[in-house]
Order: sequence, then C-alpha cells, then structure tokens
Amino acid sequence: MNVGDRHYRTIWLNEDGWSVDIIDQRRLPHEFRVETVRDTTEIATAIRDMWVRGAPLIGVAAAYGMALQMRADPSDASLDEAWEKLHETRPTAINLRWALDAMRAHLKPLPESERAAAAFARAAEIADEDVELNRSIGRNGLEIIREIAARKKPGEPVNILTHCNAGWLATVDYGTATAPIYLAAEAGIPVHVYVDETRPRNQGAFLTAWELAGHGVPHTLIVDNAGGHLMQRGAVDMVIVGTDRTTARGDVCNKIGTYLKALAAHDNGVPFYVALPSPTIDWTVSDGIAEIPIEERSGDEVSLVAGMDAEGAMRQVRISPEATPAANPAFDVTPARLVTGLITERGVAKASAEGLAALFPDRAR
Amino acid sequence: MNVGDRHYRTIWLNEDGWSVDIIDQRRLPHEFRVETVRDTTEIATAIRDMWVRGAPLIGVAAAYGMALQMRADPSDASLDEAWEKLHETRPTAINLRWALDAMRAHLKPLPESERAAAAFARAAEIADEDVELNRSIGRNGLEIIREIAARKKPGEPVNILTHCNAGWLATVDYGTATAPIYLAAEAGIPVHVYVDETRPRNQGAFLTAWELAGHGVPHTLIVDNAGGHLMQRGAVDMVIVGTDRTTARGDVCNKIGTYLKALAAHDNGVPFYVALPSPTIDWTVSDGIAEIPIEERSGDEVSLVAGMDAEGAMRQVRISPEATPAANPAFDVTPARLVTGLITERGVAKASAEGLAALFPDRAR
Repeated sequence: MNVGDRHYRTIWLNEDGWSVDIIDQRRLPHEFRVETVRDTTEIATAIRDMWVRGAPLIGVAAAYGMALQMRADPSDASLDEAWEKLHETRPTAINLRWALDAMRAHLKPLPESERAAAAFARAAEIADEDVELNRSIGRNGLEIIREIAARKKPGEPVNILTHCNAGWLATVDYGTATAPIYLAAEAGIPVHVYVDETRPRNQGAFLTAWELAGHGVPHTLIVDNAGGHLMQRGAVDMVIVGTDRTTARGDVCNKIGTYLKALAAHDNGVPFYVALPSPTIDWTVSDGIAEIPIEERSGDEVSLVAGMDAEGAMRQVRISPEATPAANPAFDVTPARLVTGLITERGVAKASAEGLAALFPDRAR
Repeated sequence: MNVGDRHYRTIWLNEDGWSVDIIDQRRLPHEFRVETVRDTTEIATAIRDMWVRGAPLIGVAAAYGMALQMRADPSDASLDEAWEKLHETRPTAINLRWALDAMRAHLKPLPESERAAAAFARAAEIADEDVELNRSIGRNGLEIIREIAARKKPGEPVNILTHCNAGWLATVDYGTATAPIYLAAEAGIPVHVYVDETRPRNQGAFLTAWELAGHGVPHTLIVDNAGGHLMQRGAVDMVIVGTDRTTARGDVCNKIGTYLKALAAHDNGVPFYVALPSPTIDWTVSDGIAEIPIEERSGDEVSLVAGMDAEGAMRQVRISPEATPAANPAFDVTPARLVTGLITERGVAKASAEGLAALFPDRAR
C-alpha cells in the first residue's frame, strides 16, 4: 500500500535481481526505514529480531533467505543449513516452516546450477500468491462494506473497528483485516477506522495507525477500553479483525482482547467479521477454548511501554511498581457464536463447522 | 491502609493542630511523597493539579481548605472567598461542592471567634465519616468474598479482578471497591487481585497496584485486554469495581472499559459487583446509556504515555504517529442487567429500581 504518494510492499527484490529490501518495522511509527539484506544471516536476523513480523511476511522473508543461500552455495548441505538457520529464528511459526519446506521440496530435485534462479522465482511466486490471497479476501469483504454503505446517508462513512495489526505490514501487501478497508477506499466508499491501540505491544497504535495514515484512510486511535462504549452509542458499523488460528468449527484465536470486542459487538448488534487466509484454519482443532494453548509472554511487555520521547529518541518507561508482577497472555479465543462471518479468499463463511465445510469441502475432515 | 509497615490515610491533620498533610499522588507509583499544606491556596493547588484525586478525598481536602481559611480570616467575606476559590478548582466535582456547602452552612451561623475550631472539627468529621462509609461497604463486600472462599479448597485464594482505582487513594482510607479486599486480607482470607492497568491514564498500574503492593496484598497487573480470557479460563472468581455515578435503576457509569469486563463476567458466569457509597446514586437518572453524557478528554492521554525511564526520571513517550488523531471517552455505562449486585454501606442491593428502592426507601423517588 502507499506510504505517502509511493507504493510499497513490505519486501521486494531489488533491480540487481538478488538483493532484497524490507521495511524495518522496529521503529514504526516514528521512523520509516528500508533495509537491504544480502545474505541468509541478515534475513535470519531480520526475522528473529522482528524487523519483519506477521506470519505471511515471515514466510516470504524466509523464502528469500533460502534464495540468497542458493546464490552463495547451491549444495544440498547448504540447503539444509539454510532451512535450519531460518527455522530456528521463530521455531513455532507455522507459516515460516511451510515456506521453508516448500522451498526445499522445490529446489532439491534441481541441479545445483539451476537452484539459485529457481529459488528467487519461487520466492517471488510465494510473495505474489500472498498478495493475491489478500486481494481476494479484500474483494469478499468489500461487498460487506458496500452493503453497509448502501444503508447509510450518502457521504456518511462506514465506521469500522479493528484490533491489533492484521494490516499490510503483516503480509506482503493489503493485509487481511485491512484488505477490505483498502479496497473500499480505492472504490471511493467513505470509510473511517477506529484503531484499538492493542496493549501490551501497541500494534494498533504503532502499525495500523501508521499504515492508515500513510495510505490516507481516515482513522482514530482509541484505547482498548473504548470500543464497547462506542458500539453502545452507535458509532461502529462493523468490526473486522484478523486471526492467528481459526478452528474447524469457527472459534477464532487472535490477539488478546479480541474476545471482549466480540462480546460488545454481539451485545450491540454490530456485525463482527474475521478476515483470514484459509491456511490459518486449523482443521485438526474444534473447540478453541479447550484445545488451544495460549502463549504467556514476558510481564515486561505490560510493565514497560516503548515510545518516542520529547527529544525524538526511542525510550521505554515503566508504568507500574517494581514490586508488582504482571501476567501477559498474548491471545484469546472468540467463540464461533460471537462471529458474524469468516471472510476468506473463497468467500464469506458462517463461523461453524457446516459453514467452513461448505466453503472448503476439499479440506474439511 | 499501610505503606510498608506504617498506616496512612490520604489526608490528615498534623500534631500542630492546623497544618494538613496529604499524599502527593502525582508521582506514584514511582515516588511516595507527603506534602504539608498550610493555607487555602496550597489546598486549591493540590486539588486543581491532582496531587489528590477521587471524589471523597477531594471533598475532605476542600473541607480542610475552608478550615485553613477560617484560621487566617474567619469573616463572612473570607468564607465566601474560600468557597469560590476551592469550588473553581474542579467545578464539576459533585462531592467537592457538597463538602463546601456543608462547611459554609455549618460555619456561617457561628460567631467568627468560633469558626476556625468548628471548621477543623467538621473537616475531621467528614474525613471520619468517609472512612466509616467505606468500612461499611467493606464489611458488606467481605461477606461475598467469604462465601466464595468457603467454596474453594482451603488456602486457595479468591481471585478478584478490579478496574481503575477505587482504592484508598481515592478516599480517605479503605477505598470503595478495595474495602472488601482489604477487610478480607485483614480477616485472613487469602485473596489475589488482577489489576487492570486501565488505559489511558493507567490508574490501575499506577495506583491500585501500588496500594496493594504497599499493603502486602497479592496481586498481578494485566492489560485491559486480558480479563475476558482469564474469566474464560476460570481464573477470576469475582469482579469488583467502583462507580462515578449509578442510576436509580442500577446502571453504572464508571471508568471506560468497565462495560467490557461486565460483558465478559456475564458471558462466563463470574459475579460482577459494584461498590459504592450511596451518595453516588443519582436518583434523578434512570437510563444511564440514554441520559448520562460521557466526558470526552484530550486525545493526548491516549497518544502519550507517562512513566519512569531507565534513569529514574518521569517521562512521556508518544506511542502513535503524529498524524493520527485519538478519541478519548473517559467513562462508559454498564447496564444494570450485567451487574450482580451493588455493594453499599447499607447492604448489597440488586441492580434494579426495586432493589435500590428496597435498600433506600428514604431516598428513592
């Protein structure tokens, strides 16, 4: 999407045909920096230290990491070494592993002399596939926004609330939850986005707000506490969030706090949609609350808040007493009964085993 | 309550019989500072600049402000001047105005020579009345905690979630929502408190956590997003919050985000209690959502977060892009249907017109 008047993806091949540029997301929204990576070690650092984040983007970055390795040394040993090196950067990231496996399976049968070119081509394909997946989600979500807009007075914006960052920064382009919003903006439908700051890591304030500001989409930052009140007063027309993992019956595991917004939406008759590429559906899991273990992260993420000080330097400040421990569950599960629909690349499914099976008969068990 | 091994109130008369000490709450939890105030202007500054905050405490501080004025000049003109000077510090604070009116009505009929002594005596009474009110709320809430404890395994703590600071720092002592917790701790019932940080002003992280740490009550800081997940997983036995204003039918206006916790409690069968001194019941208002206007505060409270930096200095950091506006509704309304009970000084009322009228037949309309 655009940053000011220029279009960007989060990762792209340079004109030299081999070095890769990425947006370094660590200092956003305060500083927009593009970094060039030239070997597998640099890509591994970028993934491990979260210069890039978001499942789809990490997968593409890893694919380019394999390509850079093939350019340096296309041997079988080198291929396996790159797989290990990149896998250990985020060992629990499903998408990362999927991309590494796909690259290795694609490259191994080829003669060494063809591996580098094939690797760069396949990495580019994976990137393009992600963009196309998100555009499809966007088109399906756009229809929902269009229907809401049709019921409003001409020129009145459709007010959309979102939580965390399921935006283009987490993907190659468009994002998942944001794809319908960007396509609506492109289609000239007036939209306005309420952005949950998304404590403790503030991805809404840091990333979603920056994305929307850069692309020129009207938006307002709110604390995570405010959404219920806004829905109660009729200020929100729909909610769209992303998901880390959706179960076969439509329970949605997403950033901590999503469940509270779903409850408020349900209590106020506000439609609550989840945007997801179908690979994030976990067909092996049914009951999200009983079956999905929730990652507990460091309490320091709660006690220490990072931002830019008055002199323009990045700084952390402590907001709680030293003697106070903090708990930090990173995700929660929104039961399917609170979800109006799942916006996928194939269409909008009801959040139920039947709804998902109807749209994905080839995958449902 | 205790700060370490010493008992404090938030405001007290010194041994000299006239100067007043207050806890300067502005730098909590990072610095505990007691300030001596010696005239009405200093008290006015302490109220206006929020060295002291919380409706009951502000009322008592204003009463002592009147007393200090009577010591300096007990004339009628001086009395009216003090009323004006103190009233304009927080012109919308109901409790402040109530205390000023009570003091003036008490003092005006008296000869000037008796006014100073009478003023100090009446201010002390108002302070003691607040403590007794909170102790009564505490005793009534304690019974609820005791019943929950009786259903748990011996030694297993009662897990209580609270939002914002309705603690002793907002009153003279005990607090409202915290009074049952402190009395339970005194009674030897094991309790553990989940403290919502309470964005945007972080009163939970700054004040409630500091109170509980100082008094030695086990507690854990969480982001406002986490409570729903914790309730879903059975980690919360009850919620107790305070209120700024409760309607005659039991709708509860409290700090933004309270409504979301009430929804989660309701969805998970967790009892949701509101602790309140009966003067905060507004018998003229019935439907809280339709009738209570919600204060919209500066967006800077959302965009800028204050805390202590690595060098021990207080600092603000910006968490969002400069181009991103923020909305900041300060309160929300929790409908009575989500409230299990209202813990008042007279007992626990059902959150309904009938429930409140039964407990307050002398006041209900």
